Amino acid sequence: MQTTNIQQKFNRLRANKLFETFVIFIIIFSALVIGAKTYDISPRTLWFVHLLDWLITFIFLTEIIIRFVGEEHKKEFFKHGWNIFDTLIVLVSLIPIEDSELAIVGRLIRIFRVLRMVSIIPELKMLLNSFIIALPQLGYIVALMFIIFYIYAAIGSTFFAEINPQLWGDIAISMLTLFRVMTFEDWTDVQYETMEIYPFSWIYYITFIFFTAFAFLNMVIGVVVNVLNEEHEKVLQQNKVPEPSNTELQQEIRELKEIISRNIEQNK
Amino acid sequence: MQTTNIQQKFNRLRANKLFETFVIFIIIFSALVIGAKTYDISPRTLWFVHLLDWLITFIFLTEIIIRFVGEEHKKEFFKHGWNIFDTLIVLVSLIPIEDSELAIVGRLIRIFRVLRMVSIIPELKMLLNSFIIALPQLGYIVALMFIIFYIYAAIGSTFFAEINPQLWGDIAISMLTLFRVMTFEDWTDVQYETMEIYPFSWIYYITFIFFTAFAFLNMVIGVVVNVLNEEHEKVLQQNKVPEPSNTELQQEIRELKEIISRNIEQNK
Amino acid sequence: MQTTNIQQKFNRLRANKLFETFVIFIIIFSALVIGAKTYDISPRTLWFVHLLDWLITFIFLTEIIIRFVGEEHKKEFFKHGWNIFDTLIVLVSLIPIEDSELAIVGRLIRIFRVLRMVSIIPELKMLLNSFIIALPQLGYIVALMFIIFYIYAAIGSTFFAEINPQLWGDIAISMLTLFRVMTFEDWTDVQYETMEIYPFSWIYYITFIFFTAFAFLNMVIGVVVNVLNEEHEKVLQQNKVPEPSNTELQQEIRELKEIISRNIEQNK
Amino acid sequence: MQTTNIQQKFNRLRANKLFETFVIFIIIFSALVIGAKTYDISPRTLWFVHLLDWLITFIFLTEIIIRFVGEEHKKEFFKHGWNIFDTLIVLVSLIPIEDSELAIVGRLIRIFRVLRMVSIIPELKMLLNSFIIALPQLGYIVALMFIIFYIYAAIGSTFFAEINPQLWGDIAISMLTLFRVMTFEDWTDVQYETMEIYPFSWIYYITFIFFTAFAFLNMVIGVVVNVLNEEHEKVLQQNKVPEPSNTELQQEIRELKEIISRNIEQNK
Repeated sequence: MQTTNIQQKFNRLRANKLFETFVIFIIIFSALVIGAKTYDISPRTLWFVHLLDWLITFIFLTEIIIRFVGEEHKKEFFKHGWNIFDTLIVLVSLIPIEDSELAIVGRLIRIFRVLRMVSIIPELKMLLNSFIIALPQLGYIVALMFIIFYIYAAIGSTFFAEINPQLWGDIAISMLTLFRVMTFEDWTDVQYETMEIYPFSWIYYITFIFFTAFAFLNMVIGVVVNVLNEEHEKVLQQNKVPEPSNTELQQEIRELKEIISRNIEQNK
Repeated sequence: MQTTNIQQKFNRLRANKLFETFVIFIIIFSALVIGAKTYDISPRTLWFVHLLDWLITFIFLTEIIIRFVGEEHKKEFFKHGWNIFDTLIVLVSLIPIEDSELAIVGRLIRIFRVLRMVSIIPELKMLLNSFIIALPQLGYIVALMFIIFYIYAAIGSTFFAEINPQLWGDIAISMLTLFRVMTFEDWTDVQYETMEIYPFSWIYYITFIFFTAFAFLNMVIGVVVNVLNEEHEKVLQQNKVPEPSNTELQQEIRELKEIISRNIEQNK
Repeated sequence: MQTTNIQQKFNRLRANKLFETFVIFIIIFSALVIGAKTYDISPRTLWFVHLLDWLITFIFLTEIIIRFVGEEHKKEFFKHGWNIFDTLIVLVSLIPIEDSELAIVGRLIRIFRVLRMVSIIPELKMLLNSFIIALPQLGYIVALMFIIFYIYAAIGSTFFAEINPQLWGDIAISMLTLFRVMTFEDWTDVQYETMEIYPFSWIYYITFIFFTAFAFLNMVIGVVVNVLNEEHEKVLQQNKVPEPSNTELQQEIRELKEIISRNIEQNK
Repeated sequence: MQTTNIQQKFNRLRANKLFETFVIFIIIFSALVIGAKTYDISPRTLWFVHLLDWLITFIFLTEIIIRFVGEEHKKEFFKHGWNIFDTLIVLVSLIPIEDSELAIVGRLIRIFRVLRMVSIIPELKMLLNSFIIALPQLGYIVALMFIIFYIYAAIGSTFFAEINPQLWGDIAISMLTLFRVMTFEDWTDVQYETMEIYPFSWIYYITFIFFTAFAFLNMVIGVVVNVLNEEHEKVLQQNKVPEPSNTELQQEIRELKEIISRNIEQNK
């Protein structure tokens, strides 16, 4: 009895708008603390920032416990990816790692706390989910793009490796260089260098730019068409108060015609 | 009696196409004067330009007064943001600030006079308003983009601060550097520098470019879909001469059927 | 009688597909000759190229004369912009300008001969016309963009002129620099230079990039929406076999109801 | 009898999902082998890689033979471009070219094996086919773009050839330089160089950027509109369960009216 009472209270607290706002505020505050650490600060301020850090961790821990206790079906809680993410972030923050190499992991964990914003605000969660859902739809174009990259990187590292090993040393480095060419970042420097040995290597760069630009364009159009189709279907769904089709209307008129015709026949 | 007469005259003047054209001409002329000042000009021409400046200020003052007197409901006048903007621009131009530091403020004010063009031409006003209206709709994507920037900036300033403090010194500078990376501006220089210490830091840059590109793409698509939906609704609004739906037609046919059936029953 | 005969013959020749193909071939050939001139060629080849040049001019002259003689309404001929363009290009080519400064004008004229391709192939003509038609529709956004450029250029040349006169010397140079910033071309070099004196000048660049990007985005969306609307209207035009609306159907059903009801009343 | 039996078996094998997966795995593996070769590897590993290479060639040969034997109509087999491509790739791999210059051809052939992925996975094949189909639709815009490039390149090499022969030496180099300008790649360096001799040459660059940007925008919009139209038609095709139009409904109601009216007439 008692426990159910607590659970209901916690569940109500969890759904409370004020509680949500408070958590968002704490997340923003923790982000500011992370930001503050990147500045040169006096040891005393640093000590204060560390204190704040522990306070935030404590509040986050309390919040997770409230949400967990408030959950009716305990098993469901860990079925949501975001809940696991939140719990992990908090638990790792609790481990006291001040020394040397692991300290960086602790720092990273604290940075990823900002992502908790996404798990708290439903609109951001939806946005990120739609990102993740959209990705596999574009799978085949990404695969095609990867094939283009791989072939060009293989050609590049075969021919240009001796010209500039830093750019074309092996296939992995070549792919990085090609990504740079795709973003148009000082690509002519790369091109002029190879053109001194292979004067026709501009064909390599220009065809690569064309292929990737075209694949990218197709990707963008794919996304646009998908989004527009989804919007269209949403509108169709809303209108689906089952309106009779013209075919059904025709059926009714024909029934009427039959009734009348039969009646006329009988009256004769 | 007298004042109302003046008000009507001024109101008519305000709506006059010729008056509007004259004001637009003066704004363009004032823009040219601002432009002229940026060139090296002889003291005599400068004196002439200053004279023109005062003349423009005087014409603008007259124009504001005409519009204010022409306004029927005086209180309404200051409810429009653009009216307040116009008045402020003119009033500040009147303060004679020739010396030292405040002179720059005076200069800036004169530059912003060009914006009065927007307040005069209704089409530009509409365009700018649609800009301002569109922004909050994109709020959540901007928020998500800011979170991406913040997390990457925090990671960047944690790891790369010692490599190049000018680019990664603190979180604010890191965000500026990341904005530069997003515009593909010499981003490989930034990348190669950090890759010397952390050979796998290219993952940092490429994931960042992917995330921001994807968020940006979503933003663009969001705007396109919004605009297309608005256009679609406009078309729907125009057609809304309330046409009977198929459901209503069905209803009418059924009523007809009932009338006939009842009549047949009675005739038996 | 005789002249009309010639005119008909020439008109037939003008519409001849083979004649058109021949003219297109000559234009491409003249383009190749122009291209050939840009290479270092022996005096003998140059002499040959010059001969070809005169041959092309002669063929073009003949073609214009054929088209002019073939035209039924001589006055109509010079009402089409492209005809005037063609005639001018050919006439100026006839003037023998071999010496010094005017030679460049002659060269330019020969380059613009390639544009005759557009006047010959109807599809290209349509494409270019659609370009010219689309521009004024975007007029207000271009105007707004110009205002943004002008204000930022005025601010830029006021504050940064002394830092780097080559980039911010006067308002015209500043606008060119801002165009460069808009294309993201080494914009951080420009930014870092001014940030040394005004540490907050990054606000200037980032707001500028945001405003122009947003205006550009609006321009693109405007064009897309225009094109889609035009396509939509084309489809609507094709379907306009006047189909009865639901309102008209309702009207017919109601008439039917009235007929029956009246008949029932009378039979009672 | 015997042969048909084998053919059926092979045909079944060809359609087998496991066989397809195995071939895809081998292609990915061959791609990894190609990638491995670009790294500095010990002679022993190289020997192992060469062995793998021959193994892959052998598997590919077997696969082609299986597919060829499994094909019912042998003539049909070589009518598909992809089959010819697959066969060529395998046959050339069989020629033992280890020495000097031809070795590079052998290497290239092995790289293009990755493209076999496209011929195996139907979705990628469709994607690439849609690329190839889309290209000629954009033919006229590409032609227009080429004309713009050619005219600007001719002007560029006429005026700027003496300023920097490496960028403007002849018409081909000039076109490459203009492509670079179109991608915004250090285009201001090119511009500032020519502005020293011709101060107004910025007009050349800015008009070029405008024209190409506009042509490119038109190309993108053309593709988007095409794709949306195709999607729209697909939806229309699906709905084409022949629903009666309002015109047909009206016809039926009128027939009904006539029947009733005639009956009333007769009853009088």
